[in-house]
Amino acid sequence: MRIAFIGLGHMGLPMATNLLKAGYSLVVWNRTPEKAAPLVTIGAKQAKTPQEAVDPSGIVITMLADDAAVERAVFGKDGFGEKLGPGGIHISMSTISPETSKKLANYHQTKGAAYVAAPVFGRPDAAAAKKLFILCAGPADAKQKARPVLEAMGQKVFDITDEPSHANVVKLSGNFMIMAAMEAMAEAFTLGEKHGVPREKTMEVMTQSLFAAPVYINYGKQIASHTYEPAGFKLSLGFKDANLVAAAANSVLAPMPLGGLMLGRFQAAMAKGWKDLDWAAVALNVTQDAGLDWKKR
Amino acid sequence: MRIAFIGLGHMGLPMATNLLKAGYSLVVWNRTPEKAAPLVTIGAKQAKTPQEAVDPSGIVITMLADDAAVERAVFGKDGFGEKLGPGGIHISMSTISPETSKKLANYHQTKGAAYVAAPVFGRPDAAAAKKLFILCAGPADAKQKARPVLEAMGQKVFDITDEPSHANVVKLSGNFMIMAAMEAMAEAFTLGEKHGVPREKTMEVMTQSLFAAPVYINYGKQIASHTYEPAGFKLSLGFKDANLVAAAANSVLAPMPLGGLMLGRFQAAMAKGWKDLDWAAVALNVTQDAGLDWKKR
Amino acid sequence: MRIAFIGLGHMGLPMATNLLKAGYSLVVWNRTPEKAAPLVTIGAKQAKTPQEAVDPSGIVITMLADDAAVERAVFGKDGFGEKLGPGGIHISMSTISPETSKKLANYHQTKGAAYVAAPVFGRPDAAAAKKLFILCAGPADAKQKARPVLEAMGQKVFDITDEPSHANVVKLSGNFMIMAAMEAMAEAFTLGEKHGVPREKTMEVMTQSLFAAPVYINYGKQIASHTYEPAGFKLSLGFKDANLVAAAANSVLAPMPLGGLMLGRFQAAMAKGWKDLDWAAVALNVTQDAGLDWKKR
Amino acid sequence: MRIAFIGLGHMGLPMATNLLKAGYSLVVWNRTPEKAAPLVTIGAKQAKTPQEAVDPSGIVITMLADDAAVERAVFGKDGFGEKLGPGGIHISMSTISPETSKKLANYHQTKGAAYVAAPVFGRPDAAAAKKLFILCAGPADAKQKARPVLEAMGQKVFDITDEPSHANVVKLSGNFMIMAAMEAMAEAFTLGEKHGVPREKTMEVMTQSLFAAPVYINYGKQIASHTYEPAGFKLSLGFKDANLVAAAANSVLAPMPLGGLMLGRFQAAMAKGWKDLDWAAVALNVTQDAGLDWKKR
Repeated sequence: MRIAFIGLGHMGLPMATNLLKAGYSLVVWNRTPEKAAPLVTIGAKQAKTPQEAVDPSGIVITMLADDAAVERAVFGKDGFGEKLGPGGIHISMSTISPETSKKLANYHQTKGAAYVAAPVFGRPDAAAAKKLFILCAGPADAKQKARPVLEAMGQKVFDITDEPSHANVVKLSGNFMIMAAMEAMAEAFTLGEKHGVPREKTMEVMTQSLFAAPVYINYGKQIASHTYEPAGFKLSLGFKDANLVAAAANSVLAPMPLGGLMLGRFQAAMAKGWKDLDWAAVALNVTQDAGLDWKKR
Repeated sequence: MRIAFIGLGHMGLPMATNLLKAGYSLVVWNRTPEKAAPLVTIGAKQAKTPQEAVDPSGIVITMLADDAAVERAVFGKDGFGEKLGPGGIHISMSTISPETSKKLANYHQTKGAAYVAAPVFGRPDAAAAKKLFILCAGPADAKQKARPVLEAMGQKVFDITDEPSHANVVKLSGNFMIMAAMEAMAEAFTLGEKHGVPREKTMEVMTQSLFAAPVYINYGKQIASHTYEPAGFKLSLGFKDANLVAAAANSVLAPMPLGGLMLGRFQAAMAKGWKDLDWAAVALNVTQDAGLDWKKR
Repeated sequence: MRIAFIGLGHMGLPMATNLLKAGYSLVVWNRTPEKAAPLVTIGAKQAKTPQEAVDPSGIVITMLADDAAVERAVFGKDGFGEKLGPGGIHISMSTISPETSKKLANYHQTKGAAYVAAPVFGRPDAAAAKKLFILCAGPADAKQKARPVLEAMGQKVFDITDEPSHANVVKLSGNFMIMAAMEAMAEAFTLGEKHGVPREKTMEVMTQSLFAAPVYINYGKQIASHTYEPAGFKLSLGFKDANLVAAAANSVLAPMPLGGLMLGRFQAAMAKGWKDLDWAAVALNVTQDAGLDWKKR
Repeated sequence: MRIAFIGLGHMGLPMATNLLKAGYSLVVWNRTPEKAAPLVTIGAKQAKTPQEAVDPSGIVITMLADDAAVERAVFGKDGFGEKLGPGGIHISMSTISPETSKKLANYHQTKGAAYVAAPVFGRPDAAAAKKLFILCAGPADAKQKARPVLEAMGQKVFDITDEPSHANVVKLSGNFMIMAAMEAMAEAFTLGEKHGVPREKTMEVMTQSLFAAPVYINYGKQIASHTYEPAGFKLSLGFKDANLVAAAANSVLAPMPLGGLMLGRFQAAMAKGWKDLDWAAVALNVTQDAGLDWKKR
């Protein structure tokens, strides 16, 4: 089976590599064509447009930066929307809004194609190590066909529901919960610090007792030591996600005061010029509010 | 070695039992004397007052409800403060404020005794199973002597610093982080619910991927299913702790907006009459704000 | 001079009436044509489309429900955008986003027309009494021509700056400040109530001392007595404005935690089914959080 | 009639001066005795202790810094508590907690004396100009006797209820509402600033339209121009009041998220070293969160 893979960024490249390793034939496309070189070397075919990449009735995966990029790949001049057609499956793995997912699902349905939302948890290193968690939602048939493909890219595929946008909601929920954990650690470590407890000590106790989970262990180290470079996930992307969470909450009238707190934290972090730091740098707001100077460390 | 154990509530009783099982001789005291019966049956001696329970220069453990109860056991008419004396060690395991810990430490120092703060993470079932996490802070000598005693009651003893109140700060930080995790789950599950995603689905994904930690797994189940009875830890105690966190933050000028959000949530929960539910019921505020009726489930 | 007046809702109708009384000739248009009857009776001409209403190089006023309605009146099939032309002035008085204002200003500029943003403070009764406060921003020439027209509709015309969108920002700032005042009163009156101080007593003291301003006097009475029907300004419109404030803040990275609190309050109020109450009913959230039952009053 | 006046600080001195001018005989006391000099010059008698100042069955006014100072003046070694006796009236005008007021009221009742709480709105210049607003609560008889005395010091005396602590609750409510207004202006002015609207322009519009009240006019000028020196009311006192509000809310389970926001703002302002600036400097937090540098103005 041949799969079209659209989007070869920090995440898409290792994901596509794993598909090739698993024996799938790939036709790839990326806005910056040079990024495709390592894949072509190991057997991928390169297309000039998303449209060219896709086979009628085939499977196409998108892993792009944001809602607009996905819409362009489908609806744009060289988009694959018209070409995919009956029996085709669009597996949409980017972090996009539930609304965009609904729009894409409706569109494909009118063309006889299926839309599966399959956003992921995990950074580039997890993608490379096939350790992604994949949240999969869509029509049962299409999910069944997508499953082996997805399993070639992650450690676990969660079957959410038959409504594609639900996977996007759960993905946003997860990113929100990470933001909340970062704020909680930032406030706890700073509380300790001002009482004289080293930040690392509070981090160590939490991550070796009640909070022995990857999110706390990884971000705990960064936040305890104020290490935000190089960025594993840029703060500007966290700001984008905080906005997606706020929009998803607003659309269904689900008040999220903690979500609102985090949106404000990311706005402040952007305003202070931290957009290229790791998104865990949102913790610096807490340090500044406490009158501490993190640069003096 | 004989140890005095003051306070035989839901936590104190299983903890004292584990000390007896580990071979320590115990003299126990509880405000309601009947609670001591199971311990006396297996070899503990029962005292009529905290003072009577304590040996001069001995070791005394307090596991009481709040700051006031600990102060009474030490400074009260029948308190052990004057009797403990040079070489004695007071191991204070209750969740109390850093300020009270400082006051007790100073007092004991003037008498030649040592004060070790050793608050714990874990509910009664963890206490029974010797699975407590114990946070230990105080003078090096005293900590060294206290360690084997503490190890008989928990799965891990963390050495915080030489300043006793630091253990109380870290304990409060942990309880704050649990509150934050509960709010984050409540907002995430409710966001999903209003989009049509079952609460259990969001819970399942989170606790099997990024948040595979005990706190999320245990409270996640309760919050997903709105199961708040019987109470493992009463909401009224959570309210007490939210106030201790707020006071600890205020005293060192460490702004904690998420801490403030949680204090407000617990105030609302108390005002709504939920004091005897499990403290995870704080999540119901989120459900009500979203216009949902949890009783209809 | 003949003026086109587009939009004859609760606000537009009394405003247009005042223009007629001041001696201006009017051509009016409203989506529901029947609403124009009272104006036609006293001399207005009625047009079948926004396009028909407008004279080339003339003055056109829009007072419509939201951004989309204004855009339709200008850019829609029967819109006046193409017709207004060189020398024309579009006076836009609705509460819309700064972004939409910028878009309209740019468009008109390309056609040689001018765009003046002139949103207002005041409810329908203030409009009828010519008591509106009008915030006017745009090119100096156009503002000068617009001033006498605006003065025929309000008690005071504020000259903001030469950038039209600034008037919209100030308008949104004002609505935000009203929301903040409502929350402050709700919290203060409820604090008193739970201490045993009648809500009306707190209201009376505040509005006769430090807060003797219209906003506090009018909304204070409503919030003290929980009187939210009939609605002077519907809560659903307040929700719309809270979203406009949030978007305006987000676009320039100006964190507004109080703005975020109010957006959450309006989301909750909408979720609870209060959309047709007066927007001061947002105060009921505070009452419910305090465990009080306002319906029992 | 002779009145004892205890506490001659920034507020007490001009208030006592007005009593002398109104024809009352005064015996004054202040911790720093030199402060009494201007009053002695115009006829006041000076006492060496609060106890000496008070006549049995007389009237005594306290205007002191905080709860502790009032308690010392009553219960301390040289306090007047025992001396005041049957028929005496203690008029307590400081901003203190409702709890302390209740304690004092109970105490005086056991001695046959009456306790009237009469806290004020207004700064030292208002005190000098006899422009204070006075909130009066207590037993009807005592309030009746206190009224002419209070009217000699203010422009209006509000009769709250018969329960003295209610006056303190209303006073704290007022200070909370001022804090809320300051935050609302700070956020609105900063929103405008980042859109290009001068802070002074937003201030001018608001204070000349919907918010034409003293609080907005006075603090609006300060916050628009970032003028926080010299301090009319020190930020450290605002921090004290924010804590009194939080305690009053917590004690009756009245959640105040806006109150919590303001407590956090004052904590941050204190942590940043602004304690001696005017309390309106709490607005600088908003400016910093927006990434702006107020010092560059």
